[in-house]
Amino acid sequence: MFSLVLVADQRNVVASITAAQTVDVRFPTSQQLDGSDAMNPDPDYSAAYLSLVTDAEDGHLGAGFVFTTGRGNNIAAEAIQTIADDLVGESVEDLLADMGATYRRFVYDSHLRWLGPEKGVVHMAIGAVVNALWDLKAKRAGRPLWQLVSSMSPEELVGLVDFRYLTDALTPDEALEILEKAAPGRAERTDQLVARGYPAYTTTPGWLGYSDEKMVRLAHEAVADGFTQIKLKVGGSVDDDVRRLSLARAAVGPEVKIAIDANQHWDVDQAIDWVGRLQQFDLAWIEEPTSPDDLVGHATIRRAIAPTPVATGEHTANRVMFKQLLQLEAIDVMQIDAARVAGVNENLANLLLAAKFGVRVCPHAGGVGLCEAVQHLSMIDFVAISGTTDDRYIEYVDHLHEHFVNPVRIVDGHYVAPLAPGAGTEMLAASLAAYRHHTAHDRS
Amino acid sequence: MFSLVLVADQRNVVASITAAQTVDVRFPTSQQLDGSDAMNPDPDYSAAYLSLVTDAEDGHLGAGFVFTTGRGNNIAAEAIQTIADDLVGESVEDLLADMGATYRRFVYDSHLRWLGPEKGVVHMAIGAVVNALWDLKAKRAGRPLWQLVSSMSPEELVGLVDFRYLTDALTPDEALEILEKAAPGRAERTDQLVARGYPAYTTTPGWLGYSDEKMVRLAHEAVADGFTQIKLKVGGSVDDDVRRLSLARAAVGPEVKIAIDANQHWDVDQAIDWVGRLQQFDLAWIEEPTSPDDLVGHATIRRAIAPTPVATGEHTANRVMFKQLLQLEAIDVMQIDAARVAGVNENLANLLLAAKFGVRVCPHAGGVGLCEAVQHLSMIDFVAISGTTDDRYIEYVDHLHEHFVNPVRIVDGHYVAPLAPGAGTEMLAASLAAYRHHTAHDRS
Repeated sequence: MFSLVLVADQRNVVASITAAQTVDVRFPTSQQLDGSDAMNPDPDYSAAYLSLVTDAEDGHLGAGFVFTTGRGNNIAAEAIQTIADDLVGESVEDLLADMGATYRRFVYDSHLRWLGPEKGVVHMAIGAVVNALWDLKAKRAGRPLWQLVSSMSPEELVGLVDFRYLTDALTPDEALEILEKAAPGRAERTDQLVARGYPAYTTTPGWLGYSDEKMVRLAHEAVADGFTQIKLKVGGSVDDDVRRLSLARAAVGPEVKIAIDANQHWDVDQAIDWVGRLQQFDLAWIEEPTSPDDLVGHATIRRAIAPTPVATGEHTANRVMFKQLLQLEAIDVMQIDAARVAGVNENLANLLLAAKFGVRVCPHAGGVGLCEAVQHLSMIDFVAISGTTDDRYIEYVDHLHEHFVNPVRIVDGHYVAPLAPGAGTEMLAASLAAYRHHTAHDRS
Repeated sequence: MFSLVLVADQRNVVASITAAQTVDVRFPTSQQLDGSDAMNPDPDYSAAYLSLVTDAEDGHLGAGFVFTTGRGNNIAAEAIQTIADDLVGESVEDLLADMGATYRRFVYDSHLRWLGPEKGVVHMAIGAVVNALWDLKAKRAGRPLWQLVSSMSPEELVGLVDFRYLTDALTPDEALEILEKAAPGRAERTDQLVARGYPAYTTTPGWLGYSDEKMVRLAHEAVADGFTQIKLKVGGSVDDDVRRLSLARAAVGPEVKIAIDANQHWDVDQAIDWVGRLQQFDLAWIEEPTSPDDLVGHATIRRAIAPTPVATGEHTANRVMFKQLLQLEAIDVMQIDAARVAGVNENLANLLLAAKFGVRVCPHAGGVGLCEAVQHLSMIDFVAISGTTDDRYIEYVDHLHEHFVNPVRIVDGHYVAPLAPGAGTEMLAASLAAYRHHTAHDRS
């Protein structure tokens, strides 16, 4: 009798991962030219989406995803499935107890590492798996991810970060110092977040495929909705950019900030010339002026177009690249992305690097689910790392939120702090079923 | 009657791609610790291998591959299949007539680009497809790839390169100038290659998992075989490295060069300290001292350990990263890899960048098929670009050559110039069948 009770208890407490299910989900966004820019004329916002299922009685799923723009979503799904298959049968408690070790286990798989290292499809897929585990951990704790992480001790947070290749710019001791300095104000800032939310800016008016009329109408609406910054895509034609910026500046007035985004369209010299023609419109920043890999190029551009701020990061492959953007004084704004690097852990490294170098963080979002996921990271940054929201905004685009169990809420130009347990990454089962994509080929 | 003849002629001349077949091939090399180093303790050398089949009567296949170290080879295969599926039904002549346009078509697929851009699994898969098309083109021309490419005009070669993101370091006009300067000596250097081959160095003695006795025996054999440079893996323990280098130096004598390779094991400061302890052994170069992404780190290390040369490149994701390694004066030796970047075209950009900056190129090889593929690139460099083999070597490792239709031949420490038509990338059908791997998971 006693042993039966013990078995029943173990089943409750010691749960296992029973399934790792990856779905290729694609939304036909290209039909409206939503998301169109100088390098992405017709994206179909898509997610290679992972559900980790356990045998715990709580019924919680861990959800994570790679965001893509359509073709190739199956490649990301194959990568996620390959990594997550390994977890089936493992103890949930062991995996979640030391998320630093769990993250490093994936990144240091020497075979998978060959396919990066720490970049591209495999790295993004590791991010989806890591984020799914964080979602599960937060749900089991009954807390939103931002509160779970920002209530961990400075020492615990340092343990989540991989400092390999960072120590010439940021040591564990320096990270600890940053976190300890922010610790006393955590409770007050948590209250502030719950009361007022986190500032947002909107890219909704600015897609390159929109007519002038639609852009101006949406810019007016953005201001009416309480946004204090908007963003316009540029880089198609400089004359078009001058005309659109002129119309946008007239629409929003002198007080609202306007950022521009070239989506990697230019070479270095071309970026300098082109931005030179647009600086008259008082730019909040120029985003992705050239290849995201061109760290030296960003530094050259920044020096040439000062004081216009330079922003990049949504395609920055990993913390080593961010480290160098900071060492080279190449950026004013770090734009982390929730689904590009190896998940929450690596983004903590990125946030700590930004804090060390005194650079502000304004995350990339939009796509599908990126707003839901990245808001937690900015809120962790405010509560536990940088301690400030000054001149910081999370990008907002109002696409596809309806497919999430806990969609973001924007009130008066601010992200409302999410209070539902989890990382915000769980999609509705009905959406997964309705937009599931099957790739036709069979590999021999 | 006339129309029937015309149809028959068209079938001969206007061929189509009729199939793109990807196979996941894995060799159990980890059983012998072949290929073991500080970051790769147990690689299973593998290839995600593509055959492009046509309906031409010549029966030629186009073969290309991504090299991997085992797990994840299925992900590369999925990527290759996704890209190559698009080609089925297309005209072979159209695809091969302008290989510059064909290469750009893959790299600028905006959806696939999101998964890089130009890095990781998708970029490597594009390389496999591009290389398979080059293999087909060379076979149809009845020439080895190195002769086919190095007989193209300087203007044609410039047309193969994508100068986007390069123009602050290398313009098309500068590339043309380099190629035109090399043009007069092409015939003479082709004869030299055919007569004497291209210098090689060997990594066969140096794997970290080998005993001292095995390493010393293989070092003696290397010298006896005519090699004038060997390479040792380092980075496990500095005391072990001192002992092994001491034994190796005694084995090969003072004249034979010894390079060392840390396979990304160190942080920047650690690399400087560790190499400082090993410089007494007169090092030909230190390879991959830290993260391949840490361009600034390589520059810092190079300044600190001068005059020991710094080498890297086998994990350098693309031409934009190589550009910066050169701009930052971070390397003395550029180690291109045949299966890391987007194929022959992007490696022509890398070779031209090296020529512009006066840096020598010593390609990475080994693995499976990398020797067969990369020899063509060094030979193109000698005949048509740099015009020199001074202090240049192609890496050689004697693994797995028996699986290729035209395996490399080494005579007296030199790669014998291949004369068989093609790019060297075709594997034996029997090997593909014998080592085919099936990944167990089914994505839902």
